Amino acid sequence: MRIRILQNRITPMGFSIEKYLREKRIAIESTLNRLLHSPKKYPPIIHQAMRYAVFGKGKRLRPILLIAAAEACGGKASDVLPAACAIEMIHTYSLIHDDLPAIDDDDYRRGKLSCHKKFGEAMAILAGDALLTRAFEVLSQMRFPKDKVLQAKVIAQITQAIGTEGMLGGQVEDIQSLSSPTQVQREKKLSYIHSHKTAALINVALKVGAILAGASRGELKALDKYGRSFGLAFQITDDILDKKEKRELTYPRIHGLKTSREKVKRLIKSAKVPLKGFKKRGEFLKKLIDCFVESRI
Amino acid sequence: MRIRILQNRITPMGFSIEKYLREKRIAIESTLNRLLHSPKKYPPIIHQAMRYAVFGKGKRLRPILLIAAAEACGGKASDVLPAACAIEMIHTYSLIHDDLPAIDDDDYRRGKLSCHKKFGEAMAILAGDALLTRAFEVLSQMRFPKDKVLQAKVIAQITQAIGTEGMLGGQVEDIQSLSSPTQVQREKKLSYIHSHKTAALINVALKVGAILAGASRGELKALDKYGRSFGLAFQITDDILDKKEKRELTYPRIHGLKTSREKVKRLIKSAKVPLKGFKKRGEFLKKLIDCFVESRI
Repeated sequence: MRIRILQNRITPMGFSIEKYLREKRIAIESTLNRLLHSPKKYPPIIHQAMRYAVFGKGKRLRPILLIAAAEACGGKASDVLPAACAIEMIHTYSLIHDDLPAIDDDDYRRGKLSCHKKFGEAMAILAGDALLTRAFEVLSQMRFPKDKVLQAKVIAQITQAIGTEGMLGGQVEDIQSLSSPTQVQREKKLSYIHSHKTAALINVALKVGAILAGASRGELKALDKYGRSFGLAFQITDDILDKKEKRELTYPRIHGLKTSREKVKRLIKSAKVPLKGFKKRGEFLKKLIDCFVESRI
Repeated sequence: MRIRILQNRITPMGFSIEKYLREKRIAIESTLNRLLHSPKKYPPIIHQAMRYAVFGKGKRLRPILLIAAAEACGGKASDVLPAACAIEMIHTYSLIHDDLPAIDDDDYRRGKLSCHKKFGEAMAILAGDALLTRAFEVLSQMRFPKDKVLQAKVIAQITQAIGTEGMLGGQVEDIQSLSSPTQVQREKKLSYIHSHKTAALINVALKVGAILAGASRGELKALDKYGRSFGLAFQITDDILDKKEKRELTYPRIHGLKTSREKVKRLIKSAKVPLKGFKKRGEFLKKLIDCFVESRI
């Protein structure tokens, strides 16, 4: 028994982070399964392609963050699950389109063939479109919250985070090359890509969880600070671990591996500071940094 | 004076359809101009690509139908303009993605080079994504109606019409070829494509205009009947006029040119029947069939 407790790194709440993640992932995947149309529904091929892309070896980081933020603000996971799944559908749409031959041209994703490799380019474009559309359908049909002003606010926040001022802006910047760039230009560009392409969706996941749980202004501000540090730490860690040689602009390439590691460690610390106000309720958000960032570098 | 009146085909309301269309198009384009980000906004290239695709020689059929439906139900054009422009953004996104080399591979659209021919494939994919996202941003930020339940309902209706049960389903069906199809299979497939790929967006434009104007159930039902006949008549007319030899499945190819023309004429008649209840308010909806369908065949 003692060994099991140690293995599961019991938190002060008497609940292990591994068990927490496992439970959340099961809830997220069963909700995704319910919210996505049957693979037999006409025309079957598009629903099969959507499901294929969604049900890979995803970490489900963004929906987990959304749920953890809601819980930290006193909300219930079951209330925010549809919103969490909408965020995961949006994340998946962005991966499908990123992987296309015209963009990153990646053959593998989430441990298997990328969507266009499996279903062809046309179907991958449409499957991405369909996941983005379905995400907004889910968001517009949520029964919770009853307050429809909050619901419109949530949709507005998400569209801003994933549009040209957010994720899509970062994606555009990423595919545009600089002609004979200086070090400063490269640093600026990478910072723009990181804050828009990755951090924007991570941040809005936290914000939506908080809004739906009726968070105070102070709680929203604290989660925003946490999200900024978390998002950047997560991205730099991804860059450090990235085995692909394709990408020219990565944090380690610009700043070196040692500086990158130190930066991540500083970010982990600063991400935890704004969580103090949540007391015990913020425990899982703290643990999530350990799981998704610290344990990986 | 008499000549001018005749030229402008004055309606019983003492207002010519040409003037009506001109005014609506000006209002729609200036609202689109306001709702789309400046072409200088960072990163400029994506905003330029979005604007390039939106500001072609578009007929603005869908936003005009939305406004006309709202007016027929007693609403004001100025209240529904943002929703009308969101529909036009969605229509443009679908055209950009349809034209991509992996899908229809069209080099020209709206009288100029298609988006991917002008900005490259990667930027065209992202510009389409960005227009779809921006459309939902506009819909989620509408100040009218104050009733947010209606707003969520409008977003839900649109997502259903453009998802895999609507427009995207039609698009998927369109790119899938039948192996050694029978005449019945070809007819069935074409009917599915028409009702989903084109008619779904036309119908939801009318429905959204009506919902926002607080339409009665009877008015909604009448507009749905009108929309079904209008959408099919519009699509068959497009097929009749289509100069491209690429498409295998068109109404004239399956049913012959004569039958196609007769079908359009029958549809024009049946589209006008449900408008009777709107009395004078339905006048423009009637005239729109003449302009967008009857005058073209």
